[in-house]
Amino acid sequence: MTDATMPSFETLRYAVEDGIATITLHRPEKLNAFTATMMEDLIAAFDATDADDAVRCVIVTGSGRAFCAGADLSSGGETFDYAKRLGTSVETVHRDGGGRVALRIFRSLKPVIAAVNGPAVGIGMTMQLPMDIRLASSDAKFGFVFGRRGITPEAASSWFLSRVVGISSALEWCYTGRVFTADEALARGLVRSVHAPGDPLPAAWALAREIADNTAPVSAAIARQMIWRMAGASHPMEAHKLDSRAIQSRGRSADAAEGVRAFLDKRPAHFPNRVSTDMPDFYDWQSEPPFE
Amino acid sequence: MTDATMPSFETLRYAVEDGIATITLHRPEKLNAFTATMMEDLIAAFDATDADDAVRCVIVTGSGRAFCAGADLSSGGETFDYAKRLGTSVETVHRDGGGRVALRIFRSLKPVIAAVNGPAVGIGMTMQLPMDIRLASSDAKFGFVFGRRGITPEAASSWFLSRVVGISSALEWCYTGRVFTADEALARGLVRSVHAPGDPLPAAWALAREIADNTAPVSAAIARQMIWRMAGASHPMEAHKLDSRAIQSRGRSADAAEGVRAFLDKRPAHFPNRVSTDMPDFYDWQSEPPFE
Amino acid sequence: MTDATMPSFETLRYAVEDGIATITLHRPEKLNAFTATMMEDLIAAFDATDADDAVRCVIVTGSGRAFCAGADLSSGGETFDYAKRLGTSVETVHRDGGGRVALRIFRSLKPVIAAVNGPAVGIGMTMQLPMDIRLASSDAKFGFVFGRRGITPEAASSWFLSRVVGISSALEWCYTGRVFTADEALARGLVRSVHAPGDPLPAAWALAREIADNTAPVSAAIARQMIWRMAGASHPMEAHKLDSRAIQSRGRSADAAEGVRAFLDKRPAHFPNRVSTDMPDFYDWQSEPPFE
Repeated sequence: MTDATMPSFETLRYAVEDGIATITLHRPEKLNAFTATMMEDLIAAFDATDADDAVRCVIVTGSGRAFCAGADLSSGGETFDYAKRLGTSVETVHRDGGGRVALRIFRSLKPVIAAVNGPAVGIGMTMQLPMDIRLASSDAKFGFVFGRRGITPEAASSWFLSRVVGISSALEWCYTGRVFTADEALARGLVRSVHAPGDPLPAAWALAREIADNTAPVSAAIARQMIWRMAGASHPMEAHKLDSRAIQSRGRSADAAEGVRAFLDKRPAHFPNRVSTDMPDFYDWQSEPPFE
Repeated sequence: MTDATMPSFETLRYAVEDGIATITLHRPEKLNAFTATMMEDLIAAFDATDADDAVRCVIVTGSGRAFCAGADLSSGGETFDYAKRLGTSVETVHRDGGGRVALRIFRSLKPVIAAVNGPAVGIGMTMQLPMDIRLASSDAKFGFVFGRRGITPEAASSWFLSRVVGISSALEWCYTGRVFTADEALARGLVRSVHAPGDPLPAAWALAREIADNTAPVSAAIARQMIWRMAGASHPMEAHKLDSRAIQSRGRSADAAEGVRAFLDKRPAHFPNRVSTDMPDFYDWQSEPPFE
Repeated sequence: MTDATMPSFETLRYAVEDGIATITLHRPEKLNAFTATMMEDLIAAFDATDADDAVRCVIVTGSGRAFCAGADLSSGGETFDYAKRLGTSVETVHRDGGGRVALRIFRSLKPVIAAVNGPAVGIGMTMQLPMDIRLASSDAKFGFVFGRRGITPEAASSWFLSRVVGISSALEWCYTGRVFTADEALARGLVRSVHAPGDPLPAAWALAREIADNTAPVSAAIARQMIWRMAGASHPMEAHKLDSRAIQSRGRSADAAEGVRAFLDKRPAHFPNRVSTDMPDFYDWQSEPPFE
């Protein structure tokens, strides 16, 4: 994809370089506060990273001093009153925008790393949970502040959060609405590592390189969907049914032939298969249950 | 609720002060050993905390030097032979008493904190697992001792324990029946923090205050049910369906209007909504599958 | 079982001593690389440990300097091309061999401890995940290297891994295919403890002794199946239904009478019940969903 065809967005900066897409939340004058436009932009950006074989890994970060300060509160006390703001019936179920983003990231075929450069609260925090790995600046702050605003956790975070940090920390953070430090986030497993200010993005880049330089794109896409989906499966037989088919399909691929030969030859592998064309068809990798 | 109408129990002390209910297991001469009466009392106590809007948070602790020494063994070798002790048919399925308590706590609409003042073994340990957060005295002891008594883990702990500490520690503790220290409990995530003897209750109180002073009661009740229930859900779409409705409902509430305005005004929020009257009706927050 | 009747295997050494079965992966000249024969041998070995009441606990370790170097790659680039190697139709779903082993270990009625004496990669790593507890040598190495070979995680590891280490580490290790140290494995919860070279086996033996010397065999078998199966259950009511029946059944057993009396008498318990004859029949403890 040339720069001329690179997607552009109102609320994001989007760049692909050397196999890594960087999505930067870009409303720095508003601490990258989340809006309906940002929701649409994020969904479209993950559509773009999935569709572009030049993207092996996605990094999400924020512009300026914040990662994302949460929902834009410029509508004041009516911010979360969708019927009033949108003029819809209160009987119509309004799909939570954070959840639409979270489910889109859940379906991503590329690994996703959050480089948390600064404060991340509300949807700025919960949108990170379906990202795979979080690296934080030592001056980042975190908060599941919904209870302090009189609302409730969103973005499907009630499903994600306990799978990332366990149920006790999930509950404590949502009950107190506390804004907490990167050190507390690290101690409880919310972030993988804490870095000096300015360093999360290069650290995320190094981790993305480790992925892009060593492993097959189709392997990563399948592993991502298998691991996230099996986190909710009732019995390991579900995984055995899925991975038997995956091993059979990928086992006779050009990637496997190259991967094994390169290992035996003690040389780097050059995987020929691409996500756009070579995902096995025995499973709908982007399926999801209906919203009803 | 005045002192005159405060519920009273044979095996518990129950007090509500400044928004916090303290339930104290109170058979100190028996190390607060669990009996059928204590089971009924605990269920009724959590009915009371749910029904009382003056209760924002529940603390459970023990009277005297123990938290709870487990099942009262005064029936000796027949303790767990319910058919013999109760004169029922062995064909009749006897619902485990610890499980009845655990499921009642699971359905609680108020945050629950265990202040583990001393030894907690058997049901004294497993009853804590559906409590949200555990704070322990440095001289507390813990044990999943069922295998040493020739019986099996109960109180639905086979569901709860791995969600609190991961599956390996869950299995090791149940296999060995080991009685272990607060430090081992902390290292493996069973307790949130360890305190000097006498300090768990004040520390639990401080945490309960952080909840009661800052967040909306209805928000906490909904967050509690969403997070516990989604811990067993197969796909994040389940959470998205539930939290879309929750955000829509609470987003147009008086709580949300106050919460956002207070934040923008940089002042404490005073949330008007109450659990007794304002829980949204799109979901049965205390539903559970049948016992069959 | 006398030595004369002890099962013997081509790729394993199998010994039972003082209540503990030791299964040793034994192709030391090939770093114990996994083959179809080893798959059959492991399944048969776990059939043997389940059937032998003299076995209270199972330890799995490796012969020589490795635990298991992964799939035997002597077929080169065709290693994972089952249709080609086995002459079967590509339409026939080939059940992944690692998954057949993993599901057999999942159904084990005896506690299983891995003594990871050296490198463990690929199936050498994933076969350990349904083992309950992992103890590692400080010079052990670990790797979920599938993406570096152009294939995908197998052995139902997409179900197991996040339940052992959480979802972020599961994804990072599968994305990068990195070979990592015992210290990284310990920090992220993959192993319980790290020991000097040569010490994992004695340490596993000591832990097995703690189980065998203190708890009832039938209790351990039931606890194992309850905890693993409830890790995938949607609601704690599932556990309550199962453990109510388990407590009722074991509560009137000779084991419970002995266990409680021994505790009250402050003497070691001698549990009379045996897994071969005394597992309660209200549940099929080795059932599994069909592969289809």
